[in-house]
Amino acid sequence: MTTQTETGALTQLGAHTPLPASPDQAVLERVPNPHAELAYCIRFAAPEFTSLCPLTGQPDFAHLVIDYVPGAWIVESKSLKLFLGSFRNHGSFHEACTLDIARRLVTLLDPAWLRIGGYWYPRGGIPIDVFYQTGTPPEGVWIPPQDVPGYRGRG
Amino acid sequence: MTTQTETGALTQLGAHTPLPASPDQAVLERVPNPHAELAYCIRFAAPEFTSLCPLTGQPDFAHLVIDYVPGAWIVESKSLKLFLGSFRNHGSFHEACTLDIARRLVTLLDPAWLRIGGYWYPRGGIPIDVFYQTGTPPEGVWIPPQDVPGYRGRG
Amino acid sequence: MTTQTETGALTQLGAHTPLPASPDQAVLERVPNPHAELAYCIRFAAPEFTSLCPLTGQPDFAHLVIDYVPGAWIVESKSLKLFLGSFRNHGSFHEACTLDIARRLVTLLDPAWLRIGGYWYPRGGIPIDVFYQTGTPPEGVWIPPQDVPGYRGRG
Amino acid sequence: MTTQTETGALTQLGAHTPLPASPDQAVLERVPNPHAELAYCIRFAAPEFTSLCPLTGQPDFAHLVIDYVPGAWIVESKSLKLFLGSFRNHGSFHEACTLDIARRLVTLLDPAWLRIGGYWYPRGGIPIDVFYQTGTPPEGVWIPPQDVPGYRGRG
Amino acid sequence: MTTQTETGALTQLGAHTPLPASPDQAVLERVPNPHAELAYCIRFAAPEFTSLCPLTGQPDFAHLVIDYVPGAWIVESKSLKLFLGSFRNHGSFHEACTLDIARRLVTLLDPAWLRIGGYWYPRGGIPIDVFYQTGTPPEGVWIPPQDVPGYRGRG
Amino acid sequence: MTTQTETGALTQLGAHTPLPASPDQAVLERVPNPHAELAYCIRFAAPEFTSLCPLTGQPDFAHLVIDYVPGAWIVESKSLKLFLGSFRNHGSFHEACTLDIARRLVTLLDPAWLRIGGYWYPRGGIPIDVFYQTGTPPEGVWIPPQDVPGYRGRG
Amino acid sequence: MTTQTETGALTQLGAHTPLPASPDQAVLERVPNPHAELAYCIRFAAPEFTSLCPLTGQPDFAHLVIDYVPGAWIVESKSLKLFLGSFRNHGSFHEACTLDIARRLVTLLDPAWLRIGGYWYPRGGIPIDVFYQTGTPPEGVWIPPQDVPGYRGRG
Amino acid sequence: MTTQTETGALTQLGAHTPLPASPDQAVLERVPNPHAELAYCIRFAAPEFTSLCPLTGQPDFAHLVIDYVPGAWIVESKSLKLFLGSFRNHGSFHEACTLDIARRLVTLLDPAWLRIGGYWYPRGGIPIDVFYQTGTPPEGVWIPPQDVPGYRGRG
Amino acid sequence: MTTQTETGALTQLGAHTPLPASPDQAVLERVPNPHAELAYCIRFAAPEFTSLCPLTGQPDFAHLVIDYVPGAWIVESKSLKLFLGSFRNHGSFHEACTLDIARRLVTLLDPAWLRIGGYWYPRGGIPIDVFYQTGTPPEGVWIPPQDVPGYRGRG
Amino acid sequence: MTTQTETGALTQLGAHTPLPASPDQAVLERVPNPHAELAYCIRFAAPEFTSLCPLTGQPDFAHLVIDYVPGAWIVESKSLKLFLGSFRNHGSFHEACTLDIARRLVTLLDPAWLRIGGYWYPRGGIPIDVFYQTGTPPEGVWIPPQDVPGYRGRG
Ligand SMILES: [Ca+2]
Ligand SMILES: [Ca+2]
Ligand SMILES: [Ca+2]
Ligand SMILES: [Ca+2]
Ligand SMILES: [Ca+2]
Ligand SMILES: [Ca+2]
Ligand SMILES: [Ca+2]
Ligand SMILES: [Ca+2]
Ligand SMILES: [Ca+2]
Ligand SMILES: [Ca+2]
Ligand SMILES: [Ca+2]
Ligand SMILES: [Ca+2]
Ligand SMILES: [Ca+2]
Ligand SMILES: [Ca+2]
Ligand SMILES: [Ca+2]
Ligand SMILES: [Ca+2]
Repeated sequence: MTTQTETGALTQLGAHTPLPASPDQAVLERVPNPHAELAYCIRFAAPEFTSLCPLTGQPDFAHLVIDYVPGAWIVESKSLKLFLGSFRNHGSFHEACTLDIARRLVTLLDPAWLRIGGYWYPRGGIPIDVFYQTGTPPEGVWIPPQDVPGYRGRG
Repeated sequence: MTTQTETGALTQLGAHTPLPASPDQAVLERVPNPHAELAYCIRFAAPEFTSLCPLTGQPDFAHLVIDYVPGAWIVESKSLKLFLGSFRNHGSFHEACTLDIARRLVTLLDPAWLRIGGYWYPRGGIPIDVFYQTGTPPEGVWIPPQDVPGYRGRG
Repeated sequence: MTTQTETGALTQLGAHTPLPASPDQAVLERVPNPHAELAYCIRFAAPEFTSLCPLTGQPDFAHLVIDYVPGAWIVESKSLKLFLGSFRNHGSFHEACTLDIARRLVTLLDPAWLRIGGYWYPRGGIPIDVFYQTGTPPEGVWIPPQDVPGYRGRG
Repeated sequence: MTTQTETGALTQLGAHTPLPASPDQAVLERVPNPHAELAYCIRFAAPEFTSLCPLTGQPDFAHLVIDYVPGAWIVESKSLKLFLGSFRNHGSFHEACTLDIARRLVTLLDPAWLRIGGYWYPRGGIPIDVFYQTGTPPEGVWIPPQDVPGYRGRG
Repeated sequence: MTTQTETGALTQLGAHTPLPASPDQAVLERVPNPHAELAYCIRFAAPEFTSLCPLTGQPDFAHLVIDYVPGAWIVESKSLKLFLGSFRNHGSFHEACTLDIARRLVTLLDPAWLRIGGYWYPRGGIPIDVFYQTGTPPEGVWIPPQDVPGYRGRG
Repeated sequence: MTTQTETGALTQLGAHTPLPASPDQAVLERVPNPHAELAYCIRFAAPEFTSLCPLTGQPDFAHLVIDYVPGAWIVESKSLKLFLGSFRNHGSFHEACTLDIARRLVTLLDPAWLRIGGYWYPRGGIPIDVFYQTGTPPEGVWIPPQDVPGYRGRG
Repeated sequence: MTTQTETGALTQLGAHTPLPASPDQAVLERVPNPHAELAYCIRFAAPEFTSLCPLTGQPDFAHLVIDYVPGAWIVESKSLKLFLGSFRNHGSFHEACTLDIARRLVTLLDPAWLRIGGYWYPRGGIPIDVFYQTGTPPEGVWIPPQDVPGYRGRG
Repeated sequence: MTTQTETGALTQLGAHTPLPASPDQAVLERVPNPHAELAYCIRFAAPEFTSLCPLTGQPDFAHLVIDYVPGAWIVESKSLKLFLGSFRNHGSFHEACTLDIARRLVTLLDPAWLRIGGYWYPRGGIPIDVFYQTGTPPEGVWIPPQDVPGYRGRG
Repeated sequence: MTTQTETGALTQLGAHTPLPASPDQAVLERVPNPHAELAYCIRFAAPEFTSLCPLTGQPDFAHLVIDYVPGAWIVESKSLKLFLGSFRNHGSFHEACTLDIARRLVTLLDPAWLRIGGYWYPRGGIPIDVFYQTGTPPEGVWIPPQDVPGYRGRG
Repeated sequence: MTTQTETGALTQLGAHTPLPASPDQAVLERVPNPHAELAYCIRFAAPEFTSLCPLTGQPDFAHLVIDYVPGAWIVESKSLKLFLGSFRNHGSFHEACTLDIARRLVTLLDPAWLRIGGYWYPRGGIPIDVFYQTGTPPEGVWIPPQDVPGYRGRG
């Protein structure tokens, strides 16, 4: 796993970067939090996420929503996009995949707080959602609910 | 297949009738159209439909909507409920199941027109809808769209 | 059945009129169409409709929507409200009840065209809708769809 | 009741397993929590649930949503699907059915916390919802609301 | 007021019971809580409620939602339906009607907690909602919001 | 009634114009159609409309939507706003009010085609909608449906 | 300002009362709380509110929602309707108007708690909402969120 | 391109088939239309579709909906799923990709009629939809609108 | 006005192109229709559109949706994005702006058919929509409704 | 940066003020809180916000919602509109832009509390939301959730 943390070395922003072949090969980058004096929350919604089932090799799809309260660093958003794209041909169970994304971001950013909601498309008629946060949200920071609609089948 | 068409013989209305074991054993009943002088449309929405996959024996679910313009007969609604319930342990493909329900009603009722929408729950991430009508709707009869929302996955 | 058609005799507008005991006792009133030179459509939405099941005496509920293109007369709206309220303790099947309301209005108003949608609450898990119009709508008149959402059960 | 808890003995994953004839015959299986070091929540939405009324034998339908915070074990999802399917020909009241599913999972998984929402289709015009959780949710774990829309009848 | 509390004497379940003529004549029945060892919540949604205005005798309509955490007893649901139906020809103000239903249930059931939301249809362009609960909900019990959409007029 | 049709005399655009005291006193203005060579449709949505009941003097409210296919003239939009505002203290029945607005515009603009939908707030629990168009829409012009949601009461 | 607080003197209920010319002339009336022994909340939704801009004299519109927990008195609802209608030709800024309605009610009713949400229509592309409550809601009373949808422009 | 048209040779149904590496390698299979005597429409909704941008290699996503009126053949649904999955690592422009899927199906099935809606996720803030049908739908067949909601950005 | 029509000269795709200063300076580019043998429709949704009011210089915003049936050419989508962006500091009335975009595309592409819906944000409480198409849509091509929700004010 | 804080010097209200060329040149004005004795919250929804990407010069769009609890001052709303409009040709990253607006308001108003939600349109398929508040909301003030719907891609 390559983790780029020196901002002078941002290699992907403004260039045509090919999709990394796997999460390990993805270079997730960070830049200094430009507003480190303020406690605020950043949300990314990623409805274009796909990975592979490690048992069958069949595609899985998810809608991901990531919230975090930055500390000294914020994630560079193009590298985040490429990192999420790097799961495209990567086999991973729903729970592991969701949690691994969270942990990779936590390792890179050391945020005050982070959470991820993984809203997976149904398999066998039953979708799985995975909800993880690093702990009780910090006091005084505003973190709205994700409010992704539940799965309802048909009708 | 038992089809009861003599209205004096209505056997299920007002009684505790057990669920028929199969569509063939279900007694679908009709009564005279009390308003045969008017051209109108009757809609039944049946979100509580289930059958079995004939290959795997696993349950399938559908939301069904039936519209018809009666001729001399209308279907007795309790017998319709029991007829739909009789697919519970019956193996049938989505297309066949939807069309068979339509044909059974057409045989019984000889309606001016009938259609059925079968909105099946997703399998393999892809739901199948089946849309059948007996032909161009009769002129001058009002038949609103069924407007069952499309499947949209997650997010 | 009392049908009041002389506008000079409007007895209910501006008075405290008790709910008629039955549709037959309801006085449905009409007034001259103040815009008889124009072809237009009037819609009433009546989500507060209830009647009784003629078999069990149990309450039934419906959401009714009535569209009509007036001819020489329009219905007086307070008398319409009382007429609809008069079904409160009246036993009637869904189809008959919906069609009877239409026919009573047609008799009173002799409209260019009329339709009624009766959207009944589910019984036995299956709601019935009844759609009736007097015929093909007159050309050149604007009659938007009623677009009452379909029943979808739960979830 | 057969409860399979040895993961080496997973018998249903990857095989064509027939629907168990009853909840007692269903083999609900568990595997070790692959992320036992993290406090997270897993949600299953099951809009394809059906059982029988123990009084009348008539089918009942529900939309179920299960949330849990795993301890040492997580439920194997195919066995969960089969377990839920095993109620198909099983007679059970709404409250008991909902709570029994929760208790079976609690017995198998010994989770940090679990809740179930049973959103039953209307009977007699009135749907019943059953809401159960094992107790106050653990602090610091993120558990979004289930937000299943309420029943609204027609209109 | 007749309150039936002996479960051996259930008189309405499984029989064709006529609608009680008034709330006082309705026999609201209870059965032992089959899961008294668990703290859970039961919700009834009743969109088919109607009563009379005590001043004008005109019909009023409401959508009612009742949540309760049972103690030793649960309400028998058919008797609840008949009890709610017994307001059909009963005159009652919105506030009193909503609160009386709550109090009747509290008297019968002695629940750990109960609440009722009465969402009344607009009169004079302004609908009234009445929200009552017996007190702070018991700790550790899951009670989702009722989330009945607000009234919005037109457009 | 003052109708200003000479564009050199536009008196209200860019000035603070008081609300006209009545529709008769409102100066509805027109300007030349800047694209008279094209057949297109203009829609105004006016959810802020109010007038008075001519019988009781009580306020009425409506959501209005106006579509028209201009000929040589288009309406000046600030004068339209003031014209609609001029009904504020004007007594008018729902049907007359809706149709009068249409006719005033037709007189001023002589459009290829015009329609108005008046979606009135409920009175007595029943809202009235009025739908008027000048005739069959001209061929080849695109006129989307107004799709204003129907009234649904509560729940 | 005339405030009528003696219930024997209710002058508007059941009579044809003209719209008061200003809030000062409106007679806001109260009646004893018929359920003063219970802590409950009453909600009024008033989507038919309009006033004038004090600077330009142009109409303003708002959707108002009022929640209160009554003490010894409740507001008489017809007088509330007339009071709200009395702003029709009254100039007032959004904030002042919303807060003045709240204060007038608080003065009249001395409620345990009251709040008002004023959801104003957009001006200059930006709507203003005003949210006021008399203080922290009383413990143990159920007060659901108002959940009025936010303004979203177009698209 | 391998196209399997002999039904005896169905190779993928009921087996664990790996995802084809490209559309050319996908084996799209057909079976005889079991209801060739009826004119009906089949809809597949595929919200889990992804391909690659041929210029940048970056992932693209689409929600696809396919409607067809079968002739002698229907598509085998598992092979359809694998065929759609085979675009995962295939570079294709939005228009070409959508149309190619349609043409491949038309070649295989020779349907009475077919259409495809490709609802692509936004790039540069602007999503592209592609709508193709083989021609005017056959008369008398019921083909409901796809009604996929338009893209609306934020707010 | 510069219109680039030679595809060999595409200058903006794959480069960082600054926003053109005005529609006249924007280079709207075309490429050969890669599927000129098929009759299909392309839709662009552009919720990120803004221009200036020519009278006041204040910003205007619109949600635009463009549908067209290509002939020999299709528009290059990055040049379309830049063209739409070039209205940012350009003064134009709603009607003219919407129609000018259509005409520029028609001039460039000579399509079989084109339409544009301009859904403008409200001014003075009343939004304007502009609907234009080049004529009756070509037969046999599928062109779904745009279904952009109407403006509804607040509540 | 010019900040006008003397209310006698309001220069923009009631005049035709050109759009400021940059946030620095915008004159954000304040007036005394007319209800400083009450603790209440004011919300502005601004769906018409646009700025430029500082890297590429391309337009960015956001839907902004600002809530604040005023102290001695409230913001003059026309100056707020002009201030937000002044970002039109200003380059700023999403996070900085959102937070700068908040800080400018805080500096001007010294409110008891303020928060801003910046809901940015997607770039690279992933929208960013920025949520900032000045700290824990003051006790006893009612501040409803902003409830801006999440981004959901297509389908
Ligand atoms: Ca929510
Ligand atoms: Ca459902
Ligand atoms: Ca599935
Ligand atoms: Ca539709
Ligand atoms: Ca989606
Ligand atoms: Ca529709
Ligand atoms: Ca029912
Ligand atoms: Ca909620
Ligand atoms: Ca309703
Ligand atoms: Ca009303
Ligand atoms: Ca409204
Ligand atoms: Ca909410
Ligand atoms: Ca928008
Ligand atoms: Ca994008
Ligand atoms: Ca405005
Ligand atoms: Ca539509």
